[in-house]
Amino acid sequence: MAHTIRDKHKLIARIRRIKGQVEAVERALDAEIGCADVLMLVASLRGAVHGLSAEVMEDHIRNHVADPATDTDPDRAKGAAELIDVIRTYLK
Amino acid sequence: MAHTIRDKHKLIARIRRIKGQVEAVERALDAEIGCADVLMLVASLRGAVHGLSAEVMEDHIRNHVADPATDTDPDRAKGAAELIDVIRTYLK
Amino acid sequence: MAHTIRDKHKLIARIRRIKGQVEAVERALDAEIGCADVLMLVASLRGAVHGLSAEVMEDHIRNHVADPATDTDPDRAKGAAELIDVIRTYLK
Amino acid sequence: MAHTIRDKHKLIARIRRIKGQVEAVERALDAEIGCADVLMLVASLRGAVHGLSAEVMEDHIRNHVADPATDTDPDRAKGAAELIDVIRTYLK
Repeated sequence: MAHTIRDKHKLIARIRRIKGQVEAVERALDAEIGCADVLMLVASLRGAVHGLSAEVMEDHIRNHVADPATDTDPDRAKGAAELIDVIRTYLK
Repeated sequence: MAHTIRDKHKLIARIRRIKGQVEAVERALDAEIGCADVLMLVASLRGAVHGLSAEVMEDHIRNHVADPATDTDPDRAKGAAELIDVIRTYLK
Repeated sequence: MAHTIRDKHKLIARIRRIKGQVEAVERALDAEIGCADVLMLVASLRGAVHGLSAEVMEDHIRNHVADPATDTDPDRAKGAAELIDVIRTYLK
Repeated sequence: MAHTIRDKHKLIARIRRIKGQVEAVERALDAEIGCADVLMLVASLRGAVHGLSAEVMEDHIRNHVADPATDTDPDRAKGAAELIDVIRTYLK
């Protein structure tokens, strides 16, 4: 993965926050707090995993397909920028 | 949460497996394995979180709305069974 | 379907709007407008179908499982209200 | 949209099938068939719209970003092929 260090740190920070959310669901199940609260914690976890999916996909596009910021072909740069926008809309 | 012990143990086992999947994504990001492999690990994690969502929702229906197996009103029992089927279709 | 007339009219109005969105995608594909615009039209259509899913599921809960507004069992009314909230969060 | 005629015909055929599914939901609502059947028709429609989303996104990648089949840069071709695989996994 030829990713920049910045990307890597950002994604690792994100997955660690998700681990914290998973542990919150585990504690909530263990403590037998209200079922509706568990459902809302799981909904937040789901949103965070969708956000991570979009972020990893965007990184893949920038690092392994075409980076809108640096691609020398303007049509491909535009196509990649549109694709990233659409993935954010779909996955979040 | 008036859940049975069985439900609780099943859900806790499921969230622990999800924690294992989150840790696998974290290790993959840290080890800089291929980006496509990270994407597939995240896709599995996403599927597991959707499965947990459906399971928690189904438990909520059975324990706090209507349990198709025990409800004394046959119409409500049928409606709840159909609802559980549909949620499985939509969330998995 | 023992639905009220109001529910039925609301859902039919919603599916007709969705038909309009499908026709807009068809025209966009036919006219070969920009691909990014087609993607955004499809994203809107997807959102509208998710909204319809949530609405039909909510109607099913109210009409065939438990209606929070009229159920004589306060625990079941509360459970059904929480369920409807959660389905809105998940499906929209 | 510099799409091939083949792509365009395939997508138009797909959106027309979706229109047929929307009309089936409309008829089902109008005829007041069982609510569970409406829910299943809406679930099929939702799946078809997800399939269309993945297809339009894949076409966008091939036509405006990088086509794995023809790209002269082997790393970019591989990255685009992996991306298309992942989008199919996520959106269907």
